[in-house]
Amino acid sequence: MQTQQRISHFVSLDDLSTVEIERLIARGLELKQGASPHRTVTKTVANLFFEHSTRTKCSFEMAEHHLGLHVLPFETATSSVQKGETLLDTCKTLEAIGVDALIVRHGETGYYERLQEQLRIPIINAGDGSGQHPSQSLLDLMTMYEAFGDVTGKTIVICGDLRHSRVARSNAHVLRRLGATVIGSGPREWFDDTLGIAYQEIDEALTSSDIIMLLRVQHERHLDDQSFEATVYHQRYGLTHERMARIRPEAIVLHPAPVNRGVEIAEELVEHAQSRIFDQMTNGVFARMAILERAFDEPTTKETI
Amino acid sequence: MQTQQRISHFVSLDDLSTVEIERLIARGLELKQGASPHRTVTKTVANLFFEHSTRTKCSFEMAEHHLGLHVLPFETATSSVQKGETLLDTCKTLEAIGVDALIVRHGETGYYERLQEQLRIPIINAGDGSGQHPSQSLLDLMTMYEAFGDVTGKTIVICGDLRHSRVARSNAHVLRRLGATVIGSGPREWFDDTLGIAYQEIDEALTSSDIIMLLRVQHERHLDDQSFEATVYHQRYGLTHERMARIRPEAIVLHPAPVNRGVEIAEELVEHAQSRIFDQMTNGVFARMAILERAFDEPTTKETI
Amino acid sequence: MQTQQRISHFVSLDDLSTVEIERLIARGLELKQGASPHRTVTKTVANLFFEHSTRTKCSFEMAEHHLGLHVLPFETATSSVQKGETLLDTCKTLEAIGVDALIVRHGETGYYERLQEQLRIPIINAGDGSGQHPSQSLLDLMTMYEAFGDVTGKTIVICGDLRHSRVARSNAHVLRRLGATVIGSGPREWFDDTLGIAYQEIDEALTSSDIIMLLRVQHERHLDDQSFEATVYHQRYGLTHERMARIRPEAIVLHPAPVNRGVEIAEELVEHAQSRIFDQMTNGVFARMAILERAFDEPTTKETI
Repeated sequence: MQTQQRISHFVSLDDLSTVEIERLIARGLELKQGASPHRTVTKTVANLFFEHSTRTKCSFEMAEHHLGLHVLPFETATSSVQKGETLLDTCKTLEAIGVDALIVRHGETGYYERLQEQLRIPIINAGDGSGQHPSQSLLDLMTMYEAFGDVTGKTIVICGDLRHSRVARSNAHVLRRLGATVIGSGPREWFDDTLGIAYQEIDEALTSSDIIMLLRVQHERHLDDQSFEATVYHQRYGLTHERMARIRPEAIVLHPAPVNRGVEIAEELVEHAQSRIFDQMTNGVFARMAILERAFDEPTTKETI
Repeated sequence: MQTQQRISHFVSLDDLSTVEIERLIARGLELKQGASPHRTVTKTVANLFFEHSTRTKCSFEMAEHHLGLHVLPFETATSSVQKGETLLDTCKTLEAIGVDALIVRHGETGYYERLQEQLRIPIINAGDGSGQHPSQSLLDLMTMYEAFGDVTGKTIVICGDLRHSRVARSNAHVLRRLGATVIGSGPREWFDDTLGIAYQEIDEALTSSDIIMLLRVQHERHLDDQSFEATVYHQRYGLTHERMARIRPEAIVLHPAPVNRGVEIAEELVEHAQSRIFDQMTNGVFARMAILERAFDEPTTKETI
Repeated sequence: MQTQQRISHFVSLDDLSTVEIERLIARGLELKQGASPHRTVTKTVANLFFEHSTRTKCSFEMAEHHLGLHVLPFETATSSVQKGETLLDTCKTLEAIGVDALIVRHGETGYYERLQEQLRIPIINAGDGSGQHPSQSLLDLMTMYEAFGDVTGKTIVICGDLRHSRVARSNAHVLRRLGATVIGSGPREWFDDTLGIAYQEIDEALTSSDIIMLLRVQHERHLDDQSFEATVYHQRYGLTHERMARIRPEAIVLHPAPVNRGVEIAEELVEHAQSRIFDQMTNGVFARMAILERAFDEPTTKETI
């Protein structure tokens, strides 16, 4: 058990100190400025995405490329998981074959707990059920630090389906640890009291926030629901042109994407000067490079135990 | 707008001058002879194939490999397109992540128009709906130039479902621009008057043609149709042994493949000495290398704008 | 025909002499000890897996990586096979595009026979229907030789669905050629008289065996059958804790995986000191490196004919 705790898993920002988190943010920004990555050309990783993704998967792939990592192709759809193999046995197989780290997105909240106990290679959580999405949090933080230096004393409003969002869950906690004030907004019935943050109406929250973080309305959850009206959502909770005109001049707008243009935010505002939505995607590559470097840089990973 | 027009998109041969087209043909043949490719090891591309493909996709992958390009894996089936993200936003995401060119096959005719306006990286069209298939045209041209030097004064008969074929559409136009005579043949009701070419019965057209280009009968469109009889098609419009005996001794036979053996052409004739069907596949790699070189060679791509 | 027989296909161990087989085993073990692989960086291979796989596919991918091979991505699900193209034409296409060897798993027993006749590049069989799985046999042999030096005079019991197992078929024959005694066990009605081996009850066979090879109960065949009771199977034929206590102290336990924990073997015994199940997976990478080296090392492959 002792040796296993020293493996540099990255499953939740809750497991990292604020010093470690700020070191990762700084490293991500440094890499963006052109610092040389710690290339690890002898290592192999595998990306196990059991849920759909473009941004997170492609972003990890690009980060892996920049570090010179070998990526073992793994298609969940044609793997033995389809023959009923458990996630743990699939991961143990990959470890036995020589994979040095696993990047995993899985629908089961906390899937990584058993893996952390049983594997001797790092697990990097790319999203678990309605649990955590720590690499997304890190890129969000990078984008905020890039704009403001840090988040101490800043106010962030997170607007949307907080109850089902792993982005909201990951961010709400870490932002407060780093000294920010976090407010929840959007439909009152989608608010989650267990996040430990206050609720405000969007029109009130907007004018006092430095960072406006919009959450995605999940098609699979709401947009197919006939009682849900996209245009009504947009008018009541979305970032309309009217609302955009009232945000602070230095405030920035974030969204984890994919964006439903015209729902969470007006079509053309995605590319607005105060929007950082595409910057978030760019920053995601550097955030993930910092995360992968950490997995291999530590003196206590697999080889040296 | 002005700067964007200088990006070396490759979406239709109609956008290229005949000088440019002949330069690409010559470059493809030069690469086939062993010329060193312009390696671009610092670049990343992504192949977005929203329709099934073996030849085109594998051929682009091989061309990318020969140029030393990094290929970002992208699976349409597990991407956020499944969450309703638009093609444009998917492409903008890949651009933000650092992809330098996109190779796209998509079912929507002219899908590339909005992309060309909005992206600052080249789009290479690997087939759009019933529109264009310019890289296929280029490899067809390469195969013809390889046999005859050029196509000036040559007669080409295109036989099959001209109405639904993007190969026919791409080829009919460019061949005439390059000085060839193009004839349509096959079922009269599948002929397309808008192509601006004459129709002839296959038995008449065969004996006067230098190049016989057979089009694929699309399973998904016709072969599942109970009124369609593969053997009847073969007898009336296919390249039977009898018809093969009557073509000119120097004539060549092309087919974009996959071939329905025994339908468009008799089983064993696919490997006939006058068939260039497998040469087309080989040439496809070199044609695509020339296309990719062009995307990155131009002094006016992304970096320098 | 003569030249084609000289291509180093690897479709069944029946085609190799015992000297060749033992040379491959020795080479696999040598590579595991750290011998330098014969790197073949100018070659391209493609993995065509028409059936689900994690271990075999990932293991070949890792072996290919260690040899420096270029792997052309090929997704069966989005290939033209979906448009009705035959396996032979798909393979000929890949050959025309420049692929130097094909690794194929396919549901049709003996699929490789026509390919061997028509292709000039090596076919490596990664499993055909209920036929052969020669690379699995090779890694099983490597694991046995690693434990015992060789298999002369050793007794192996293969327990499970022998009738539908290509692992059983491949192993039963080669083990006897190499001097071992092979016994079949498990449900009497799943036994296959055509394998030419004797049947024994598991409790009898266990105590006299040096190698206990468990076969996977195939979900898709039995576990969904309501008359099949996993717990009954485990009690009657599985490696329970009670049975494990009675095997020889030097005996080893093998399973081709994926394991149905609690069915073929008790949950915790997968990681037992006498289990070689994860060693098999590790050895699979080296076995496949030896197989791939053979495909390219021979002086009589494609280029030199």
